[in-house]
Amino acid sequence: MLSDVNTKAKLKKADYKEAMAALDVRLGILQRDMKEGGIPAIIAFEGWQAAGKGAVLNRILQPLDPRGFKVSNLHHSTDLEMMYPRMRRFWSQMPRDGKIGIFNHSWYRLVLDGAIGVNRAPVPGNFLERVRTLEKQLTDSGTVVLKFFLHISRNEQERRFAELRSDSTYSWKVGKDERRQQKRYKAYAESVDHVIAESHTDAAPWIIVPSTDARYATVQIGEAIAAAFEAAVGSKPDRDTSQRVPNVPAVSSKEFESVDLSAAVEKTEYDRQLSRLQKRLRRLQHECYRKRVPVVIAYEGPDAAGKGGNIRRLTRELDPRGYDVYGVAAPEGEEKYQHYLWRFWRNVPKAGHFAIFDRSWYGRVLVERVEGFATVEAWSRSYEEINAFERELIDDGAVVCKFWIHISDEEQLARFEERKRTAHKQWKITDEDWRNREKWDAYYAATSEMIARTSTKSAPWTVVPGNDKRFARLMALRTVNSRIAAALKNN
Amino acid sequence: MLSDVNTKAKLKKADYKEAMAALDVRLGILQRDMKEGGIPAIIAFEGWQAAGKGAVLNRILQPLDPRGFKVSNLHHSTDLEMMYPRMRRFWSQMPRDGKIGIFNHSWYRLVLDGAIGVNRAPVPGNFLERVRTLEKQLTDSGTVVLKFFLHISRNEQERRFAELRSDSTYSWKVGKDERRQQKRYKAYAESVDHVIAESHTDAAPWIIVPSTDARYATVQIGEAIAAAFEAAVGSKPDRDTSQRVPNVPAVSSKEFESVDLSAAVEKTEYDRQLSRLQKRLRRLQHECYRKRVPVVIAYEGPDAAGKGGNIRRLTRELDPRGYDVYGVAAPEGEEKYQHYLWRFWRNVPKAGHFAIFDRSWYGRVLVERVEGFATVEAWSRSYEEINAFERELIDDGAVVCKFWIHISDEEQLARFEERKRTAHKQWKITDEDWRNREKWDAYYAATSEMIARTSTKSAPWTVVPGNDKRFARLMALRTVNSRIAAALKNN
Repeated sequence: MLSDVNTKAKLKKADYKEAMAALDVRLGILQRDMKEGGIPAIIAFEGWQAAGKGAVLNRILQPLDPRGFKVSNLHHSTDLEMMYPRMRRFWSQMPRDGKIGIFNHSWYRLVLDGAIGVNRAPVPGNFLERVRTLEKQLTDSGTVVLKFFLHISRNEQERRFAELRSDSTYSWKVGKDERRQQKRYKAYAESVDHVIAESHTDAAPWIIVPSTDARYATVQIGEAIAAAFEAAVGSKPDRDTSQRVPNVPAVSSKEFESVDLSAAVEKTEYDRQLSRLQKRLRRLQHECYRKRVPVVIAYEGPDAAGKGGNIRRLTRELDPRGYDVYGVAAPEGEEKYQHYLWRFWRNVPKAGHFAIFDRSWYGRVLVERVEGFATVEAWSRSYEEINAFERELIDDGAVVCKFWIHISDEEQLARFEERKRTAHKQWKITDEDWRNREKWDAYYAATSEMIARTSTKSAPWTVVPGNDKRFARLMALRTVNSRIAAALKNN
Repeated sequence: MLSDVNTKAKLKKADYKEAMAALDVRLGILQRDMKEGGIPAIIAFEGWQAAGKGAVLNRILQPLDPRGFKVSNLHHSTDLEMMYPRMRRFWSQMPRDGKIGIFNHSWYRLVLDGAIGVNRAPVPGNFLERVRTLEKQLTDSGTVVLKFFLHISRNEQERRFAELRSDSTYSWKVGKDERRQQKRYKAYAESVDHVIAESHTDAAPWIIVPSTDARYATVQIGEAIAAAFEAAVGSKPDRDTSQRVPNVPAVSSKEFESVDLSAAVEKTEYDRQLSRLQKRLRRLQHECYRKRVPVVIAYEGPDAAGKGGNIRRLTRELDPRGYDVYGVAAPEGEEKYQHYLWRFWRNVPKAGHFAIFDRSWYGRVLVERVEGFATVEAWSRSYEEINAFERELIDDGAVVCKFWIHISDEEQLARFEERKRTAHKQWKITDEDWRNREKWDAYYAATSEMIARTSTKSAPWTVVPGNDKRFARLMALRTVNSRIAAALKNN
């Protein structure tokens, strides 16, 4: 609680100098250790206006290599940011492995400002729960997360505002929002207490810092950062890829394992229905645009299941200005140094737009699991993380469709052989496809468990019989249409 | 001229079907050829409202792999985009090598809309010249650039608006801006003629497409794209890295070659001045923030010249929320598949912010030249491209400072030896540093030519004697301060 904190705490200059001399060395070394260990850190700063964040931050950062940290200013969302799912702007600022992200304001700003009515948009009721989930994802994957609140009394804030106003270089710093905070100091303080109570965890703790004396605040913050970094560097788990048995029992999906692959449709019937369904989707796309409903469609399935052709039929009549198709392969470049969900957050659709993924975040529990690219601990945890990711999109209004296009072992073989024989299809088949085929059973088990664990009420899997491509295309279209229509009805 | 075009041109259904069947095959193959050849393409679409862009685009894109193109909607700038240099939003949408960027509207939108007063911000007078420069940079580096204008008569537009308004799914498409264009059809048409006259080039041609008949428009556009891709695939130059002699005579910089490396400053004098200059810069930073002046500072110099330490002194008193430091190494990930300036456009500063580069875009004419990573043709062309890049920033209000911190051959050796001896500095020295040292003369010549060719009036190089680190730090600070102060005075 803020009221438990002695805002008068201070430090003598000599003690401060001694403490900082030691801290500078420690932090300089720790930054290099964190870099070497590939450990990312997020240090979030909230606090009263004029609490001295700028000066404290400046001093803390001095011993650090400026190429290794980035200060992100997370004030009000811009109009473009507000067209996207809420959390996207934070994901876009995530530090890569070994880097330090200094968040000047953070996701908490939304709640805190909301309490005194200076927000541009309302904050959803479950927002703090969503924040907890986000922070858990980050800390589970090894990110150090620290949250500071710089605390000064109401009188002290008033004194500082007066001082700023008296200097023409700085007087602009006291604006409408600042005055409002001053006026509603008590309501804001209550909101801070509430936020801290709801979101303080061992892995991502809040630290309230008395900031009347900048020297005291600086040393407190520096010590806390150094301690957290030391703990992280010391406990860095081995990137062990041995396939230990997960402590959760394997589960399987009846829907998947009992799919009827003989389902088929006649050519004339197909042509008739296809065109009708495509035209329907075109109308729905326009309605989504008007009502600002984003649509996410993920395609998964064995090689040669017909995902590409299916997507092409799905998009046939769509306005091309309203959708993007993302082909997902192994992560590359900066993607390799980020949380595995980061690259998908980059491509979540804008309000009213469609994002279609040809393979998706489910690679985490398919190829990364089967090939051992992720530890058992990591991919086991991912089912929950993926559910949370999709829930984020849905909570902000998105429709999420997920297709598993299934084909039989024999059908895949037949398609591979045909690709080998047909000149203009040869580019579609590689040695890797043949290697993956050998792991059919392992992929089968992973798929079954994936579907069982990530089929949720608002983001269910649709298992599509794919031996007959025509049937699969109609089924995907029909599913997307009905899911969107249902969402628009409730909108 | 629009008036020369027969908007009534049309195609019979049978001819259309035959033409499209052939086009689909051609475009499908060409997309793969372009991908294989690593050739990027930008296809920009402008045209009258309701000219049928969506439908035509949809049809053209059907034979293409949707993972290989991206449709970018470039309507009005968002408020965030308007905080950045104008061209940044276009650079952020650039297709990588082998991909196709479909620009739904483009940089021309600004001028065209300006003509009928529906812009959010005024368009600078030299904008079309800047666009020509941008397109030349793209086509020079091998990007295919095509620009289509979909043309219908005023009566036809009126008819289509009426039709849209009569259907509740589409009536929202006729809004204020659309009505204004209809009303000011003639002024808009004149603006189109002007834009085309000013920006039609062989390498980036405009094609006016009569669009009353969608079939006719679709085939015309498809044929033009196929022809342009065929030409590009056929003429793809070898990525020849042989060091042919450039056709421009080598030039050298007297300022660089005559720099007095004995310049030095006493410790007490240094301490006194440093603190004063840092405090001055802090005040200037606040003024830049208020007046929304962005500041770009590039540091170059031999290994161990003291760039990092210099930057640290420069940023010492700055508000960390207002600057970023970018360490520039070899391009990685997607950067490798983009124009060499692309990654720097990503990091240009927001209005009122500082971006400091520890090494920069000048790598193109230093390491890429000396090590043969760029062809002679490519790096020779880069001086002009770099000047144009900096001019872009300056035209939009930025202050650009460039420092070459110079040290002597002997001083570098001494610093390398010291790093080797000192435990906590060993991480700073690598085998590559020693290898680079062997090419001292080649780097010296490249530096001299670079400074001669890219020292412009508004973005001059400052050659900083660096043997005495203290002197170099004061000089950089003093230069930044006076350049900013001069800019603010004129602001």
